[in-house]
Amino acid sequence: MTQTYNLEQINSVLDDIDLTTLIEEGFVAYSQGNVVVPPVGELVMHDPPGEAHIKYGYITGDDYFVIKVATGFYENVNLGIPTGTGLMLVFSQKTGELLSVLLDESHLTNIRTAAAGAVAARYLAPKHVERIGIYGAGVQGRLQLKYLRPIVDCRKVMVWGISQEELDRYRADVEPLGYDVQATLDARDIPSSCNLIVCVTPSYEPLVQLEDVRPGTHINAIGSDTPEKQEVDSRVLAQADIVVVDSIPQSELRGEVFKATTAGVLNVDEVLELGNVIADKDLQRQSDDQLTLFDSTGVAVQDIQVSKAVYEALRA
Amino acid sequence: MTQTYNLEQINSVLDDIDLTTLIEEGFVAYSQGNVVVPPVGELVMHDPPGEAHIKYGYITGDDYFVIKVATGFYENVNLGIPTGTGLMLVFSQKTGELLSVLLDESHLTNIRTAAAGAVAARYLAPKHVERIGIYGAGVQGRLQLKYLRPIVDCRKVMVWGISQEELDRYRADVEPLGYDVQATLDARDIPSSCNLIVCVTPSYEPLVQLEDVRPGTHINAIGSDTPEKQEVDSRVLAQADIVVVDSIPQSELRGEVFKATTAGVLNVDEVLELGNVIADKDLQRQSDDQLTLFDSTGVAVQDIQVSKAVYEALRA
Repeated sequence: MTQTYNLEQINSVLDDIDLTTLIEEGFVAYSQGNVVVPPVGELVMHDPPGEAHIKYGYITGDDYFVIKVATGFYENVNLGIPTGTGLMLVFSQKTGELLSVLLDESHLTNIRTAAAGAVAARYLAPKHVERIGIYGAGVQGRLQLKYLRPIVDCRKVMVWGISQEELDRYRADVEPLGYDVQATLDARDIPSSCNLIVCVTPSYEPLVQLEDVRPGTHINAIGSDTPEKQEVDSRVLAQADIVVVDSIPQSELRGEVFKATTAGVLNVDEVLELGNVIADKDLQRQSDDQLTLFDSTGVAVQDIQVSKAVYEALRA
Repeated sequence: MTQTYNLEQINSVLDDIDLTTLIEEGFVAYSQGNVVVPPVGELVMHDPPGEAHIKYGYITGDDYFVIKVATGFYENVNLGIPTGTGLMLVFSQKTGELLSVLLDESHLTNIRTAAAGAVAARYLAPKHVERIGIYGAGVQGRLQLKYLRPIVDCRKVMVWGISQEELDRYRADVEPLGYDVQATLDARDIPSSCNLIVCVTPSYEPLVQLEDVRPGTHINAIGSDTPEKQEVDSRVLAQADIVVVDSIPQSELRGEVFKATTAGVLNVDEVLELGNVIADKDLQRQSDDQLTLFDSTGVAVQDIQVSKAVYEALRA
C-alpha cells in the first residue's frame, strides 16, 4: 500500500532524524562504489521555458530505490509561485513496490544539500571557527546554518546578500536561534573575519577572491552546480591544501572544480572525494593553517538517504 | 495542490473516456514530430533481479508533461504479489507544478496498450471480421477485446492459451459480454478461422506461422517489445501488404519488425508509422485481400494521452 505524505507531514519528522550522519554514510557508500546512479533524465520545455530533472538510484543491498523529480520554471516569478518543485518516490528494492510518495515540494533537496555542507565541515573546518560567513541570505543560507549548528559551536555569523531587506529578514530569522549576525552588502567583507565560509548563491562571478582568503579557512562551495556558475575564484582552489568534491565524475563537468580545471590551474587528480575523506583520517584537515574547500554539485545518494529516512520515520 | 488518486478512483472514470480517439490523436502528434520523448531511464537491480523504467515526455504546446514509472520484479511470483507496478505523474507544462499522482499500479499502461490495438484495427482490419483470434488469455487478452468492441462488430472469438484452466476463466469472463468464445491449446487453430488476430503473449517463439495465415487477415502484434520476444513468423511480415509500427525508431531496436529486418526479410523503409496511417487514407487497408500487420512496442505519447485524460476526468 503506497503511503503519500505532504510537506507538513514530512516537516513533522525532520528534526528527529540525524540526517548528517545518514548523508555521511551515503557519501561513503558512493565513494566505495556501492551506489548505482544512472545518468540524470532531463526534459526541456520551451513555452514558457522550463525543465524537469529525474535523478534515481540505489545503494547496493539496501531495502530501497529512489526516484526524484525536480522542476524549474523560472518565469513562475511573474506568477508569484515557486520556480521549482519536486517529489521523491521510495520503492522497495526487493519487490519493486511503490512504498511512498513524498510530496516534499523540493524541500528535501534543500535539506540534503545543507546536510552535505555540515558533513564537509565536520572533517574539514578548522578546530576554532571565529565566525561563519554565509554568501546568500535565502532558504539555503538559513538551512546551512541549521545543519552546521550541531557540528560547529561558533555562534557568530556574517551574512552577505543582494539587498538590505533580504539581510534584515535573515538576521531577524537567525538571531532568535542564538546567533550574533552581522550583515554586509560587500562580498569582500566575509573572508577577512570568517574562517568557515559557506557559498549558496546562483552567482556566475566569483564572490570569494584569493587575495581576501586567510590560511586556515574552510570554504563550502555549494551554489555552483552547472558548468557556468561560479562563486569562488579558481586561484583559491589552486592554492588550497585540500580540495574535496561530492562526486569526482560530476566535478569534471560542473561546479568550481570544473571551472578551475578548465582554467588550467587545477588538476582533477589532486581532488578528493568526500566519501573517501570521511573514511580516512589522513585525508581530513591536518592543521590549523590549511586552506580547504568542498565543492558540492549534489549526488543522488543524498536523495536516497534523506527520502528513506523520512519514509521510515513517517511509517513508524 | 497535488491530487493523488488510487486505482479504484482511476477505474471509476475510465469507461467515460473515449480513449481510443485520444490515443489516435497522440499517435498523429507523434508521427508529425510534435512529441518530445527523451530516452527511457532504466534502473537495473540484482538481488533479487528487478528493473524500473522511467518514460517521460510531452506534446508540444499541450498543457501537461508526464512521467511514468514501471517496475518489473519477476521473482514476485514466488511471493504471490504482482510482478510489476507503476504510477504516472502529471505536471503542468506551463509552471512545472505537480498536478496529479496517479497510483494506477500499471493499469493505465495496460489500458493504453489495448487502445492502441483498437486504433490499428480501425484503419487496418478487414471490413468483415469472421472471428477475432486472441493469443494470450490474460489481462491484456481481455482488454484488447474490450477496446475492440466499439470498433469491430464481430462477436466471435477464438482464444489460445497455455492451460485449460486459464482458457476456462477467460471464457467465463468474456461470454457474459456477448461473445461466442472458442478456446484452443493449439496455436495453429487461430489463423485458419480468424481474420483479425491479436497477439499479446510474452512469447520468444513465433505463434503465428506464414503457412496458416489467410489473405485479408490483419494481425495486431502487441506482445513483443524487446529485441528477443517474437510472436509472428518474420515471413508473415515479409509477405504482408502493409506493415505498420507505432514508432519507426523503436521498431529498429525491438519487436517484430526488428526480428524481420535482422532476419533480412524486411526493409525498414517498407514500414509505415501508425500516426501517418491514421492521417492518410491512402496508407490504410485498400482491399479485402490485403494482409496487414501492426507491431506495437509502446510509446510514451500513449502514457501522456491516457494520464491527462484520466486526470481531467477525475478533476472534473
